[in-house]
Amino acid sequence: MNKVYIIGVGLIGGSLAIDIKKLNKEVVIYGVDKSESHLNEALSLGVIDKKANLKDIKEADLVVVAIPVDATVKLLPEILDLVSDDTIVFDVGSTKVAICNAVKEHPKRRNFLAAHPIAGTEFSGPSAAHVGLYKDKTNIICEVEETAFKLQEKALKLFSDIGMRIRYMKPIAHDKHIAYVSHLSHISSFMLGKTVIEKEKNERDIFDMAGSGFESTVRLAKSSPEMWTPIFEQNKNNVVETLDEYIQNLKHFKSLIEDEKFDLVNKEMKDTNRIKKILKGIK
Amino acid sequence: MNKVYIIGVGLIGGSLAIDIKKLNKEVVIYGVDKSESHLNEALSLGVIDKKANLKDIKEADLVVVAIPVDATVKLLPEILDLVSDDTIVFDVGSTKVAICNAVKEHPKRRNFLAAHPIAGTEFSGPSAAHVGLYKDKTNIICEVEETAFKLQEKALKLFSDIGMRIRYMKPIAHDKHIAYVSHLSHISSFMLGKTVIEKEKNERDIFDMAGSGFESTVRLAKSSPEMWTPIFEQNKNNVVETLDEYIQNLKHFKSLIEDEKFDLVNKEMKDTNRIKKILKGIK
Repeated sequence: MNKVYIIGVGLIGGSLAIDIKKLNKEVVIYGVDKSESHLNEALSLGVIDKKANLKDIKEADLVVVAIPVDATVKLLPEILDLVSDDTIVFDVGSTKVAICNAVKEHPKRRNFLAAHPIAGTEFSGPSAAHVGLYKDKTNIICEVEETAFKLQEKALKLFSDIGMRIRYMKPIAHDKHIAYVSHLSHISSFMLGKTVIEKEKNERDIFDMAGSGFESTVRLAKSSPEMWTPIFEQNKNNVVETLDEYIQNLKHFKSLIEDEKFDLVNKEMKDTNRIKKILKGIK
Repeated sequence: MNKVYIIGVGLIGGSLAIDIKKLNKEVVIYGVDKSESHLNEALSLGVIDKKANLKDIKEADLVVVAIPVDATVKLLPEILDLVSDDTIVFDVGSTKVAICNAVKEHPKRRNFLAAHPIAGTEFSGPSAAHVGLYKDKTNIICEVEETAFKLQEKALKLFSDIGMRIRYMKPIAHDKHIAYVSHLSHISSFMLGKTVIEKEKNERDIFDMAGSGFESTVRLAKSSPEMWTPIFEQNKNNVVETLDEYIQNLKHFKSLIEDEKFDLVNKEMKDTNRIKKILKGIK
């Protein structure tokens, strides 16, 4: 591997660039981004070695597509059009059905690996990129059988080198499950932030009372709307289903409080405390 | 200050005990707890110096009441019955109206200071107690004018010594605001945990896909039901109001997704991103 192209030099693409460079000093990291200022920032931070254009990617050994999922659906067929037969291209998007569908019939489908590394923070942009983001995290690979074996191998070696463990799933199963453990968390956090901010309009000092519990619960409400809007769009049906269940559970909890059934309020929380054990498994 | 009685030697009371002892080596910390095993644990961890009984508190200089808010409402009048005229008693409960009302007409009302240190973690019990929990945190004091001046002074000096900043509020305002920035966060987190756990019954591997975002949002669902049930009971009206607003916001967000108004989905998140600036103010 000599030439690596990172399309989208933000938190996810930039952190991959840093890890790849750390492991392979000889590699040259080329950055492509629609934002010239992001590109310059990535260059000056040393996240990438050189600025590049999409048309140059025919010479790439590896192309990482780390842009919002709507842009991936649009750009991925063009990227596959451009790359050589020996290039492996993988994406990192939080939806997999729409992305896999976008290249289903593409003549270079076998150059593409659909991936979703479960890693990130609430921050974005090249300055958020950092070494080790992927260590001990899960990478979900979809439709692995659709990727040429020798090219898979390259990508999987890289994932293993940066410390990720692999899970294989079908795109439909991925999108359904990820709605629960990721997409719903983001909406619950955004709406919690909204509810409290609305209140604060009239009550200026309310945030003096907020502690670390509020901070933790509302952390994801700092996330980028440009990244998350297309995710909710592409995963609309699953997201709506999880929201329905969440709203149902909240209404039930509220009715228990209104009806003063506090033994059942206690039981709801006790049953959910089991999350402790489950979270221990999350790195 | 020579003799300090901590009623309830868990995370909150225990951490106060540790800070007090660190600042005043000569003080003897007496622990009172309805759980004998908690008391023994606190003693063996060095959180308290001696085990004691409630009836001994007549000799106390300071009494800290750090038990669930329903127990505080019940026990606080008895504690005030027992203490000497020079003893300052403060509580640390997450509701203030019911607690202040419970001692409104008590002949020793002036020995009591109503406090709510905004500090804690999702863990509980003596083993969760640790040094420095209160550093740079806010302590909300209610009805300060009802406490004897000389006794106030003792408590406020202690709060200042352990690094807390003070805010004065009326009990009604406290309970209303804290419902938004604390009680609602706990419910949103518990119900998120419930929604995902319910799903997991059929889909065993779902948690392999959960990342740090889910972990952060669901962290408060580890909290103690014994502590939180009476809080929701005492603050029922405010909690129901915040839940109504939260559910309304979630339903609206869901309808925007269902109606494919993704420009408005984006705007909702962008508007809420302002939480970044607000959270910077939270220590």
